[in-house]
This record gives sequence, structure tokens and C-alpha cells, in this order.
Amino acid sequence: MERRYALKTRMEDDFSKWYLEAIDSADLADQAITRGCMVIKPYGYSIWENIQSILDQEIKNTGHENCYFPLLIPLDLFDKESKHVDGFAKEMAVVTHHRLEVTNGKLVPSGPLETPLVIRPTSELIIGESFSKWAQSYRDLPIMINQWCNIVRWEMRTRMFLRTMEFLWQEGHTAHETPEEAIAESRTTHEMYYNILQKHLCLHGIKGIKPDHEKFPGAVTTHTIELCMQDGKALQACTSHYLGTNFAKANNIQFQSRTGSLEYAHTTSFGITTRIVGAIVMSHGDNDGINLPTSIAPYHVVIIPMQNDVLEYCQKIKENISKVCRVHIDAKDKKSSHKRWDYVRKGVPIICEIGRKEVESCSISATFRLNLEKNTISLDEFSNNITSYLKQHDSELSRRNIELHKTKMIQCDGLSSKQIHELLANENKLISISAEKEAESLCATLDQYGITWRCISQDGISVFGKSY
Amino acid sequence: MERRYALKTRMEDDFSKWYLEAIDSADLADQAITRGCMVIKPYGYSIWENIQSILDQEIKNTGHENCYFPLLIPLDLFDKESKHVDGFAKEMAVVTHHRLEVTNGKLVPSGPLETPLVIRPTSELIIGESFSKWAQSYRDLPIMINQWCNIVRWEMRTRMFLRTMEFLWQEGHTAHETPEEAIAESRTTHEMYYNILQKHLCLHGIKGIKPDHEKFPGAVTTHTIELCMQDGKALQACTSHYLGTNFAKANNIQFQSRTGSLEYAHTTSFGITTRIVGAIVMSHGDNDGINLPTSIAPYHVVIIPMQNDVLEYCQKIKENISKVCRVHIDAKDKKSSHKRWDYVRKGVPIICEIGRKEVESCSISATFRLNLEKNTISLDEFSNNITSYLKQHDSELSRRNIELHKTKMIQCDGLSSKQIHELLANENKLISISAEKEAESLCATLDQYGITWRCISQDGISVFGKSY
Repeated sequence: MERRYALKTRMEDDFSKWYLEAIDSADLADQAITRGCMVIKPYGYSIWENIQSILDQEIKNTGHENCYFPLLIPLDLFDKESKHVDGFAKEMAVVTHHRLEVTNGKLVPSGPLETPLVIRPTSELIIGESFSKWAQSYRDLPIMINQWCNIVRWEMRTRMFLRTMEFLWQEGHTAHETPEEAIAESRTTHEMYYNILQKHLCLHGIKGIKPDHEKFPGAVTTHTIELCMQDGKALQACTSHYLGTNFAKANNIQFQSRTGSLEYAHTTSFGITTRIVGAIVMSHGDNDGINLPTSIAPYHVVIIPMQNDVLEYCQKIKENISKVCRVHIDAKDKKSSHKRWDYVRKGVPIICEIGRKEVESCSISATFRLNLEKNTISLDEFSNNITSYLKQHDSELSRRNIELHKTKMIQCDGLSSKQIHELLANENKLISISAEKEAESLCATLDQYGITWRCISQDGISVFGKSY
Repeated sequence: MERRYALKTRMEDDFSKWYLEAIDSADLADQAITRGCMVIKPYGYSIWENIQSILDQEIKNTGHENCYFPLLIPLDLFDKESKHVDGFAKEMAVVTHHRLEVTNGKLVPSGPLETPLVIRPTSELIIGESFSKWAQSYRDLPIMINQWCNIVRWEMRTRMFLRTMEFLWQEGHTAHETPEEAIAESRTTHEMYYNILQKHLCLHGIKGIKPDHEKFPGAVTTHTIELCMQDGKALQACTSHYLGTNFAKANNIQFQSRTGSLEYAHTTSFGITTRIVGAIVMSHGDNDGINLPTSIAPYHVVIIPMQNDVLEYCQKIKENISKVCRVHIDAKDKKSSHKRWDYVRKGVPIICEIGRKEVESCSISATFRLNLEKNTISLDEFSNNITSYLKQHDSELSRRNIELHKTKMIQCDGLSSKQIHELLANENKLISISAEKEAESLCATLDQYGITWRCISQDGISVFGKSY
């Protein structure tokens, strides 16, 4: 008999549909009434909070301080930038009025603003404005700050977590005395992201830099980590930019140097967004729902009592392990098999069902999410080994993700762009090209097939692929 | 000789000017380039982060889950509310365009929206929209959620932290089956705020409810905590509203009850904003700068090495105490007396200056912020007593704040509103009136003098005052 899965759609049949179903059935987010926006529900938000907390600590450990800059940026400031920065993006939400008024029984905007305000699509401009005041002398440098905030970019085609009109992110911004320092800083944050992705998110992507035409507008170097999703498409997980003096010039970030001359600061920026939650779903999920690395899983263990009189025993289990992991007892009035499948879909690493049999034998019936095998384990053994079970869970996620990156990458040296296109006709793959010259010559035609140059890895390998 | 203070303006001479100077010299925030907005700088933001972390834990402990709703709300939704809610506020930022375009060499808004979007002035409406989907049956209730986010309200007269066009806050929203449950919930969150203000912020305000005309539009009951500032004006620190079924009706939050009938949910909301940072400055500050309760102080102890060769000893002090408090060594190239006064202005509870003399005698020269006395203490004694010093710091802040509330409150039973006005001619005070009937009859005329009815305390005492 064919195995039945907890999701209706199988990822091999329709990856996009599977993705939305995985999000919905794990209760991560809803479509919002505002076009292109989403409501991040408690379970989804809790994952983001866990990511934030890991990242925030690392951002602070690497010398950055948090602060907060305004959401609304006077339109004038963009005038400056549009003159300095090629590829200046124009899709932004513009505030033109400051009042609602009733006219003919309907609310309409009134109180037009003299200078319209733009909702930040990123904060380089308004932060640069402050940096230009704060950086007077070389003694004021480096300035290394970060903010957690919301961003609005007018996207026509949106998709839950991956591309939404509003998203949450962290944006770091730094200003330095010398190019060397700024370059080192952008490498440090790139490395920080890489380590967090590997260690905490079990995501083993490709660390590289963007080719020139794919860089952030105004950047000298854009560092990226490209992840391969299970459908063989690439996803840019995060970026660290070395901006040279481009933004300093647009924002007039000048300081008096050690020799007394007036110089432009070298700036960097780095960011990661709620999109990473979508990447986790598409990287680790399976046909039974999402899977979560333990660092960010809201619960590591869920205990489902099958009768009321086993609650005390469930409490005992919880006490035994709650010092080393996040445990939740779900005693809600709902059929326990339904609960089990809910938690499977939510990607809880270990799901325990406790009935009278377990109480009598002082044991636990534990389902491990990654193989869905039910095991009967003595309470002692379970309590003693819980940390090792969770480690195994993460190792297995990492093993699968490393394997995924291996199997989805094909070496295409010497092939024409047409041949490459044909190779990808039935299945998306990442394409590696050893020589950058060859990559350059393929770039334009591959682009026409929707295959873009994702990055040049640290070993100098160019990686192409379809992407999110 | 008259004692010189670290701030130029004394609070008794010009409280408003003193306030801005205290913020500026503690490096809490800057005026932003965006009118009415501020840049919260690292030291100020760190205070907010500490408040957030305490409050977030308590919000979770009381059963609420964090989530995130859109910044932008379709204008249509406000149409509904304006019909249901008296006193509907209209000053809001309205997004009408989604693009910037160059016309005659200047960037101008383009891409007009069919339905304008409003930047949330609070999220009752858009959260209510979700609640109406989530609450189908009594089994789905209660729903208890919270979000940390930014809010925009078009304010004409703004003041750092106290009233800014954009501010940060936490807004909790809950929906319940019965009025009893919802009322109990609004009391729980009111109590939660009260305890946090007392225990963590050393703020001992008046716990009460708002008189009818001062309630949040649409609320049945608005619980408040009113704080007395050092200039004798009142400040509303936070609110918890019981909203009855008013918002449920506007948003159609209906559920199938236990008896099968369709009923409106009873909702509540509760919030506290970055304004509390302003309240802390105006409550605890003095003519030498701000003062901070230890729960939220970025540093408890700052160590200033007076020469380079004492750094090792400074490290030793840090190691001795860093397990029980937040210590920072400031080895920057700057005159140490300047540093000392910087940290006085920043309200660091204990400032240690370490020179060769201290190293030789294995002692510490410690300045306690609240009395600015310098003490020479042996390293052992200092290390052993650090927790108790910090407790004393908080006790003293609390003692002063309790005293402040006592001395600034005058009993005015039987006086006319004119007499009360005259009493406040030279000095702001809070006014207490024992009988609610008397308060009601005074209310309108006092209002003309700018003296408003702040709350009715738990003991039934009506409190009036000028306010922020």
C-alpha cells in the first residue's frame, strides 16, 4: 500500500502548491487583507524570534550596536541617491497625505504633504544622513550599528515569506576610516551569516560574491550565500555589501583624517530577512510538512496525553527534560491522532504520545519527525538521551541539506547555453562553471532562459541557476 | 561655593529645556531629518531593549503569544470603524502612490493606488480582521496575542520620546467568550504593567481607570497608570482596555457559543510605548543627567582606567563582578574626568576610576551616581557587595519616586475649580478629590485651565493634573 502523507500535495508534483500548503498546515502565516502582505502567526513568528535571538547575539558579539531610525524618509533624500546610484529602484510606498476626512459619506485622504514621505525600502539613505553628522573625525570611526525593522517594497508578484510587500529584517550599517577595514567588516558579517546558517539552521549553501551586474546598486562587492532549494532553484539567503565611498558621497559622510584632510568614509551594509523562514521550509520540509532545526524550533518535544489520568506522568516527563529542551504538553480537547499529525506538519522533532500503557511500563512512545518511526523507550533512557536525539535530528537535517546541494549541482564546463538550458528542461539544477571568462560569455544567453548567475564561490567557481 | 552640575540647564529653571538636554547629553536620541521623528541611538535603544525583554517575558508568562500584522491597512477598513467608534481619530499617514518617477529632473510620486493604504495608528482593525477568521467557535477562544512594532500618528507638536510621529510599542490584543473573562484579562495586564513599573522601573504611579470622556474611543473601561513627573505634571504610562463587543461588532468577530448561538467576542487591548523612556528621564533624572534603574541600565558599572598600565587590574575587577552585573571598561583615548562626567550624565549607577594608587592598594575609587560621592573601597569588599550596592541604588530611586508622588499630590476636597487653578499657579501639582460626584462637577471648568481628570484610583479617589 502506498504510504499516505500528511500534506495533500506532494512536492515532486507541484512544489509551489506544496510550499503554500506546508506553510498553511504548520500555521506559520496567513494571507493578510492588505495586498501582498502576510500575517505572521504565533508559530511562524516564534521561529523568527528564535532566528533573531541567535543573530542578534552574534551581531552584538561582532561589535555592532542596535538602534532605530525612522520608517518614513523625506522624498528629497532619494533625489540625491537617484543621481549617485545606478539601478536605483523606484517601487516604493509613498505617503502624500496626513489625514482621513469624510467626504460624501466616505473616508478620503486629506491634508496633502508639502514633501511626500517614502516608506523605507532600505535605510542606507536615512542612516547615511545620521552618519554624516556622527562621523566628524577619524576618532568617531568605525561606526557599527544594526536595526531590526520592517521594510516595504512594492512587489507585483508576491509569495508568502519569499517575497512580500512588507517584510521584517535586520539591516547592519557601518562606516570606516579605510577600505581595508570596511572590506574586512563585510567579510566578517558574511562569515557570521555563513556560520549561523550552517550551525543553527542546518543550511549548507554556497558562499560567494555576486557578479558585477547582480550586485546591490551602489555596492563595490556584494557577498552572498546562495542556497539550493529542494526543487533545484537557488535562493539568496543574505547579503553583505562593501559600498566603497559611493554611499558616503551621496550622503556626504566625510571625516577629518589622521593627516587633517577631509575624506569620505568607507561603508558597508548587511541584512537578512523573514524570507529565510521560507528558505527553511523549502530546504528542510517534506511531504509530511515542515522540518525545523532545533535552534529555532518553538518546541523540541511535544507530549500528547491520551487520557486525562496520565497528565501527572506527562508532567514528570516534562520536568525530566525541560532543563535541556523546549517541551510542551498539549492537553487540549482534541483527538490525539489529529494532534500527532498537527505536530508532524509543524515539524516538531520529537512527538510523544502517552497513554495508560506508557504510564504502567514507565515508558514513552516517541515519534521522531525525520523518519516518523514510533519507538517505545523507557523514561530513563529517554531523559538521559534527549540531547543526543536532538543532536541527531540536526545532524540528519544537515546531512540531507549537504546531500541536496551535492545532487542538485552539475558541472557544465564546455557546454553551450542551449545545452545547459536543455539539461534543465525537466529538472532544475544549479550549474557550475569553472572559468569566470566562460561564465561571462554564457551569462547573457542563459539569462534569456531564466538562468541567472548566482555567485562566484570562494574557489572561483561560477554558479548559475533559476532562482527565487 | 555653589555646586556645579553636569547639565547646563537646571530642571527647576526650565524643565522642558532640561529634559531635552538630559536626553542629548546621555546620547539617547537625535532629532531625525523626518519631521517629528527621532533616531534612537544605541544607548537609548539599549534601554528600550531591556524594557522589552522584561515585558516580553511577562507578556508570555501571562499566556500571550507574539505575532506580526501588516503595517499598511486598506482605507476601507477605517470606513467601518468610523461608523462604529465615536471619537475616531483622523490624523494618519496615508499611502496613495507606489512608485517614484523622474519628471522634469525631479522625483515625484507616481502609480496611484486604487485603494489608499493607511499606516497603522494602532492595529485593532487589522488584527480584528484576522480574529474574525480565527474565532469560529468558542473552542477557538481565548485568542491572546501581542506584537512589537512601529506606529505612526500625525502629531503636530512633537517632543523626543514623549510624542513623536513614529513610535515603537507593544500592543496586545485578546478575544474572549465572556465579558467576565475579558474583564479579568484587562485587569491582569493592568496589574502586570503596575508590577513591572514598580519592580523594574522604580516608578510608583497611580493605578486607576479613566473617567468616561478620557477613555480610548470604543473602550468600555480604560485602565491606566498615571505617573507624576518631577515638574508635577502627570504622564499616562500605559493602558489596558476592556473593549466590550464594540470592536467585535465593527470587525464581525463572531463565534458559535456553547449553546449553538452566534455571539460577539469580548475583546481587550493593552500597550506601552517608547514614551516610557521619556517618563524615566523625567521621573529619575537630576541636574547631573539621567538616572536608570538597574533592570534597564545598559551598564551597571563602568570602569575607567586612568593609565594604560592599570588595564590588567581593571580586567580583574570586571571578572570579579561580571557574573552578577553588566560591566564595561572604557579604555578609549579621552581624558578620564571627561569620561566620568559622560557616565554621570548617562546615569551609570557606579563609576569606577582606576589609577596606579588603586592598583597598589588593591582598591577601587567608586562614584555612586545617586549621591556622586567618591568612595575608596577594597577590591574584595567591592566585589562582595556589588549586588547590594545595586539594590541600594534601586531602593533609593524608588524611595525618591514614592516621595515625589507624595509631595506632588494635594487634597482639594471642597475647593472650587478657580481655587484649584490658583493653587497651581506657581507649581504644578496633582489634585486629589475624594468624591467622584465632586470630580464630575469640577471636570469641565478645570479642563479650561488645562487641568484634566487623569484617573479614578482603586480607592475611588479622582486625580486631576496638567499632563504630557
